[in-house]
Amino acid sequence: MAPTLEDWESQLPPVPAPLANYTLFRRSGRIAFTSGVVPLVEGRLQAEGRLGEDLTVEEGYEAARTCALLTLSILREHLKGLDRIRQVLRAVVFVASAPGFHEQPQVADGASDLLVEVLGEAGTPARMAVGVAELPLGAPVELALTVETRR
Amino acid sequence: MAPTLEDWESQLPPVPAPLANYTLFRRSGRIAFTSGVVPLVEGRLQAEGRLGEDLTVEEGYEAARTCALLTLSILREHLKGLDRIRQVLRAVVFVASAPGFHEQPQVADGASDLLVEVLGEAGTPARMAVGVAELPLGAPVELALTVETRR
Amino acid sequence: MAPTLEDWESQLPPVPAPLANYTLFRRSGRIAFTSGVVPLVEGRLQAEGRLGEDLTVEEGYEAARTCALLTLSILREHLKGLDRIRQVLRAVVFVASAPGFHEQPQVADGASDLLVEVLGEAGTPARMAVGVAELPLGAPVELALTVETRR
Repeated sequence: MAPTLEDWESQLPPVPAPLANYTLFRRSGRIAFTSGVVPLVEGRLQAEGRLGEDLTVEEGYEAARTCALLTLSILREHLKGLDRIRQVLRAVVFVASAPGFHEQPQVADGASDLLVEVLGEAGTPARMAVGVAELPLGAPVELALTVETRR
Repeated sequence: MAPTLEDWESQLPPVPAPLANYTLFRRSGRIAFTSGVVPLVEGRLQAEGRLGEDLTVEEGYEAARTCALLTLSILREHLKGLDRIRQVLRAVVFVASAPGFHEQPQVADGASDLLVEVLGEAGTPARMAVGVAELPLGAPVELALTVETRR
Repeated sequence: MAPTLEDWESQLPPVPAPLANYTLFRRSGRIAFTSGVVPLVEGRLQAEGRLGEDLTVEEGYEAARTCALLTLSILREHLKGLDRIRQVLRAVVFVASAPGFHEQPQVADGASDLLVEVLGEAGTPARMAVGVAELPLGAPVELALTVETRR
């Protein structure tokens, strides 16, 4: 049997600490914004470095999945439950990329696939996947979501 | 005589296929979000590589124009007509850039100019133009829009 | 005594000129979007180049602070006063970064700290800080905000 929202909620990682002077969540009406998160597990990066150089696509995919779990943890805390998410509007996925690496969409699917696993079709985001020079702490992936909440 | 919205609609390219697990369009109330698109024409990149190295500013400008046409095609399909666009709120234009290339605004104007050509003053976006390391498939430009729809 | 909003308004720099074909501000309902701005002071970049190579974190921090001041100047003009800002929803901070530079959050705090200084807790943004290859004109930082306005 597929896990329920409650099953997912019980398995989410702790809400991450902000790395500097910002808040993890803001909302205006039904639109909520999360900060960019990097794949920190118990205070350490799950993977470090750039795709196409230090890490495989599979490792990047897993890092993107972790970013999505952390972001759901933020949303659960601020919305008081994952059932308050009506749909994911947009995911922005930055992928630290060495010259010549073009598989950002395959890496970003680590986030999309998790969101769909948890939220169903409503979790499929409009998405930007972009290869960038460097990310905070040397992270391979940074993810930020815009979501619509239920009233 | 300037082309009408109907003229433009008849000339738009087919809606692109997503490259991975995401949707091209999401909406909440009057705000609509499109996914990042790259300049694919009949399944092939119109231009490939980085600005300041592989491509001229003019080639980048044309690639950005193609991204805008593809995005209008997405909006026409999901909104049932370009006349449902009230204004373009924000354009984010990522430009694959070699070291020392700083003309991202001139490249991004390929998108802005097309949006204004089609939608008039309402097409002028608030905009971010940013030079990044690498884009999906080796594309030179990626464009995403946030638009306001009519009720 | 801490400066009031009126004190800040009297000290803001002039609204910057767009670098190309875009507008500095768009609004839909209570959500307002600003364009990406670079740290231009009297038409010249306050600092130029990449972090981790040409500039110190402190210089990047000051550049981010200038971007925030310019953005508040745009918001003051279009909203007719800083008191019309209800909260900052999201800040996107792109930092031109040399290989191995990972202190984007410390640079981006130049913008966050100023927003909090002026707007209090409501100025703390959800935030993305990202290291990119190159920015327009050779700027070290580009900032764009999404804010909620008062009715």
